[in-house]
Amino acid sequence: MKKSRFTHLDSRGAARMVNVAAKPVQTRRAVAEAILRCAPATIRQLRKQALPKGDALAVARIAGIQAAKRASELIPLCHPLPLHHVGVDFEVRADRIVIRSEASTDARTGVEMEALAAASVAALALYDMLKSVDKKMAVERLRLLHKTKH
Amino acid sequence: MKKSRFTHLDSRGAARMVNVAAKPVQTRRAVAEAILRCAPATIRQLRKQALPKGDALAVARIAGIQAAKRASELIPLCHPLPLHHVGVDFEVRADRIVIRSEASTDARTGVEMEALAAASVAALALYDMLKSVDKKMAVERLRLLHKTKH
Amino acid sequence: MKKSRFTHLDSRGAARMVNVAAKPVQTRRAVAEAILRCAPATIRQLRKQALPKGDALAVARIAGIQAAKRASELIPLCHPLPLHHVGVDFEVRADRIVIRSEASTDARTGVEMEALAAASVAALALYDMLKSVDKKMAVERLRLLHKTKH
Amino acid sequence: MKKSRFTHLDSRGAARMVNVAAKPVQTRRAVAEAILRCAPATIRQLRKQALPKGDALAVARIAGIQAAKRASELIPLCHPLPLHHVGVDFEVRADRIVIRSEASTDARTGVEMEALAAASVAALALYDMLKSVDKKMAVERLRLLHKTKH
Amino acid sequence: MKKSRFTHLDSRGAARMVNVAAKPVQTRRAVAEAILRCAPATIRQLRKQALPKGDALAVARIAGIQAAKRASELIPLCHPLPLHHVGVDFEVRADRIVIRSEASTDARTGVEMEALAAASVAALALYDMLKSVDKKMAVERLRLLHKTKH
Amino acid sequence: MKKSRFTHLDSRGAARMVNVAAKPVQTRRAVAEAILRCAPATIRQLRKQALPKGDALAVARIAGIQAAKRASELIPLCHPLPLHHVGVDFEVRADRIVIRSEASTDARTGVEMEALAAASVAALALYDMLKSVDKKMAVERLRLLHKTKH
Repeated sequence: MKKSRFTHLDSRGAARMVNVAAKPVQTRRAVAEAILRCAPATIRQLRKQALPKGDALAVARIAGIQAAKRASELIPLCHPLPLHHVGVDFEVRADRIVIRSEASTDARTGVEMEALAAASVAALALYDMLKSVDKKMAVERLRLLHKTKH
Repeated sequence: MKKSRFTHLDSRGAARMVNVAAKPVQTRRAVAEAILRCAPATIRQLRKQALPKGDALAVARIAGIQAAKRASELIPLCHPLPLHHVGVDFEVRADRIVIRSEASTDARTGVEMEALAAASVAALALYDMLKSVDKKMAVERLRLLHKTKH
Repeated sequence: MKKSRFTHLDSRGAARMVNVAAKPVQTRRAVAEAILRCAPATIRQLRKQALPKGDALAVARIAGIQAAKRASELIPLCHPLPLHHVGVDFEVRADRIVIRSEASTDARTGVEMEALAAASVAALALYDMLKSVDKKMAVERLRLLHKTKH
Repeated sequence: MKKSRFTHLDSRGAARMVNVAAKPVQTRRAVAEAILRCAPATIRQLRKQALPKGDALAVARIAGIQAAKRASELIPLCHPLPLHHVGVDFEVRADRIVIRSEASTDARTGVEMEALAAASVAALALYDMLKSVDKKMAVERLRLLHKTKH
Repeated sequence: MKKSRFTHLDSRGAARMVNVAAKPVQTRRAVAEAILRCAPATIRQLRKQALPKGDALAVARIAGIQAAKRASELIPLCHPLPLHHVGVDFEVRADRIVIRSEASTDARTGVEMEALAAASVAALALYDMLKSVDKKMAVERLRLLHKTKH
Repeated sequence: MKKSRFTHLDSRGAARMVNVAAKPVQTRRAVAEAILRCAPATIRQLRKQALPKGDALAVARIAGIQAAKRASELIPLCHPLPLHHVGVDFEVRADRIVIRSEASTDARTGVEMEALAAASVAALALYDMLKSVDKKMAVERLRLLHKTKH
């Protein structure tokens, strides 16, 4: 199940874009998650100043969607892919914001980097908007939740 | 010390680029860190296949530097800034890779988002290169280590 | 004929990229038009200084073609699409320049935003080149002329 | 007051970036406006589905702000400028949405193209979000309202 | 064999993106080469300071791969294409660095501009890294080595 | 005169953006040249179909100017710089097109990469437009002609 070598590095260790020509086009989907840890006072202030009707979550959502679309510009060995769908959503809890992203397409290679880029950049956009109030935030865990192909 | 309001959101909660016209140009520097948690076997394989002479860390470094330069494209309310310096470095440990980035410039606003974008995208680039071997990696903590202005 | 809801906004009003996975790939074409209203003296000066052999219309044409290719970067919820063709043409009249653009591809979603982005940015590029002479120009009407799929 | 020649075209009509080296750095500000004409039913549906708490205006605002930041990529002869501030706001009326943008900086050249790009792309983003309901929208007038330097 | 007219210019000489709608999707591959001529002392210094384990070639490789992916942004009449593979490799000789690039995809139009952009920008990236030592480098020959479709 | 080390590589060979903080802002100018070698029949066809009034040279000029503005995106260790001026010009000879570019600004670091990127990408854009007629073109020499600071 686990490959024994990094497919993105050749036998000399040189970086390469994997040649996907021989892979079949399949329907690909990936879901990722990032958690932005904040002070409870930050979340309270966010609820007061910007939720439910302010722009904060919309700005982060758009930043995430745009990042998924440009994943192949950000990540050097990523293939440029058309995307059928990108979604970014948020759960605002007492001391953190959970960001969940998904990406899907029909392609020869997976879309996990697109989903991870979306969650990651959405977290950065939130950080940027909240940082005037909270200097101690951290993105705590960015990971792939699942990916499928069929 | 802590401001009571988000400067990036107005009284209606609408997003806005902060007007920095009245702020003085100062020398700004920010240092950020991200940790990519990997299986020890992944790190061993990385040491064997790509360290010390392969491209893996160079690719991630470049991805991070380029991300710092385009932080204002990725993060909607970020100001476009000239940068004097961006650096990204790595410490490969038994079960993780520690990514440290710094950015500096003379500007009216800080460069923490540039440093965070560098660490964040360098981590994504590493993830992309290592994911054929390790499906369970996570970016564990992305945070600002310090920032200065003078 | 008219849908009763905005497909780009969900039931909470949250923005979303429409999931086009279930739509068939069809041949899509869209034609758009923008009108840049100028003073007659501006048009006379343009004819004297830059028509027929100057670069002015070529610069605007290229700006428009490039904008169509990056429509999905400019417009947050737009899908990235390969394009078969983008064309931008101009009709210079006594008091206006009529810009007509078209875009076509085989895709799951239409190319009207690509055509509109082309006409719109071609108009901005003309505005930029003519503004040293004419401070009162306006883009008067930017609209879709027709779109087809089959 | 009106210059007799296009500064962006040389004596052969060839396009050129104006050399701004000799111009003084001044505080520049520009305000632009675009009007998106919609059917009254579209506006009613927008008020019901997405105002006041939906993302629609936030998405368009971000699209406009990002377009101002990349004006020099969109408009071939535009100078890349740092920006102190970009703002985009909306007035939703019975049969149109009025988009007002402003940009400001300290630079050797004006920021009217940045403001116009912001208003123009914000209008395109709104068009994109509303087009599933209304096929007959048009951007009716895109123009500079005023610009200052001092 | 040789077409008598430029397909990218119409009968008036106006630039156009060729409409590729009627062309079949074929497997396309192109290989290009650029030669960066350097002083022998530069090459010796490169071998000492950065080969085999430094980042220099990795940086140039990534620059080339990224340029192939954005060829349609750099070259105005180029079609945006998905790419199956981009590779950039180097041969460091006594007085020059030979850069060889290849690009491949399934598309309606060839990928020679993608391969040429990769070789060209990889050469620029090397030039940038070596220029503090050698002021007299030149890219000596950038050309297509071969292209295939089937 | 000649530095003994590559400033873009540290003592381990790792790539780095040079820290320009300590350098004074100076007026910088650089001039570069590229030569596109073509068959004489290609040049004759170009003169007939596209010169003097066609778009071919304007397209290449714009491609070059845009590339100068995005040099820091193309070349990983380049600093983002504001530019006062970018110019690209052409001399069409019997068997070649000579492309000359210049870039200037006030900055802490030189603009030779901007000038070289402009000449290089302008050559690629010409190649793209002429390639349907001439399969054997080559960019023959891309080099810096001079650079100044004061």
